[in-house]
Amino acid sequence: MHKEDSKYYEQVVATKRMFGGKIFNVDVEQVILPNGIPSIREIVQHHGAVGIIPLVDDKMIFVRQWRAPLEQETLEIPAGKIDPDEGSDLQEVALREMNEELGLTTDKLEKVTAFYASPGYSNEKLTMYLAKNLKPVENKRPLDSDEFLNVEKLTLDEAKKYVEDGTICDSKTIYAITYWELLKSKGE
Amino acid sequence: MHKEDSKYYEQVVATKRMFGGKIFNVDVEQVILPNGIPSIREIVQHHGAVGIIPLVDDKMIFVRQWRAPLEQETLEIPAGKIDPDEGSDLQEVALREMNEELGLTTDKLEKVTAFYASPGYSNEKLTMYLAKNLKPVENKRPLDSDEFLNVEKLTLDEAKKYVEDGTICDSKTIYAITYWELLKSKGE
Repeated sequence: MHKEDSKYYEQVVATKRMFGGKIFNVDVEQVILPNGIPSIREIVQHHGAVGIIPLVDDKMIFVRQWRAPLEQETLEIPAGKIDPDEGSDLQEVALREMNEELGLTTDKLEKVTAFYASPGYSNEKLTMYLAKNLKPVENKRPLDSDEFLNVEKLTLDEAKKYVEDGTICDSKTIYAITYWELLKSKGE
Repeated sequence: MHKEDSKYYEQVVATKRMFGGKIFNVDVEQVILPNGIPSIREIVQHHGAVGIIPLVDDKMIFVRQWRAPLEQETLEIPAGKIDPDEGSDLQEVALREMNEELGLTTDKLEKVTAFYASPGYSNEKLTMYLAKNLKPVENKRPLDSDEFLNVEKLTLDEAKKYVEDGTICDSKTIYAITYWELLKSKGE
């Protein structure tokens, strides 16, 4: 279906860049609603990211780091932004992040899902891979200069305790843990 | 633990509002990294939202709508933003959204989880409730003036087909479907 054929289509009549950042930009669009009334939409423009669900034996690997927007430490699955010039090979992005954050690599990446983090106002898409058969990299890449983290391996029960106490608290990691529990309940 | 005691703590030395919107604001923070080097953090400030996982017999209820950031129609579980003046009763927000979007209410809301949509640059927190025992509301509230949507009930298999074709594509809804599958696999 062409987007214009949607019953709910909103025609964009003007776009203005309101903020240009390192991580995202913000546009305000003037749109025409399906009933013909003009309105505006505020949009975070983001190049997307990749998350990795790394499983080793009966544990998942997490990184502990500071998150400025939340003003707290979190435990999250490894993830990284897609650079605008990086092209469309998201498996390469996943392998780069696993190298930088964990010092690990794999020949077995399996796409699990992809989702928009917050579709009401952002186009950030996160693609997630399951990583098994992990082994140490031969050439470890350095972390980004503003990245500081600790690598921690947890069982499902340990991870659920960190969900309870709020240390694990982001969409991709909560998704990963629920997906992991589903795999286990299916005996996979 | 006080946040200052975190090994990864970033001290905020200045904050500048770069964009003030209806849905979110954007701040740029000057911070001191754990190694003493100054850096900046770009932050989307958002009041948070509530998502509802409405189950009726063997179906989940979704709303079809246009999403400007994605330039497409989506099917999502019902959800709504928390108004800044709404206080902290998130169950009230969930009931209001169910009223507005579905015309339904319930005496049985159960908190499932809560997660930050994109913790690297946004403080938007989404709290999710499972809603059962649904019944029609007596006084239906109108939708917001810029909201146009269609209510659709789907089985798990139908929902998974919409994940495949990209109509279901956002974090809360993909989470909800995986959670639903987990409930089913546990026989709940």
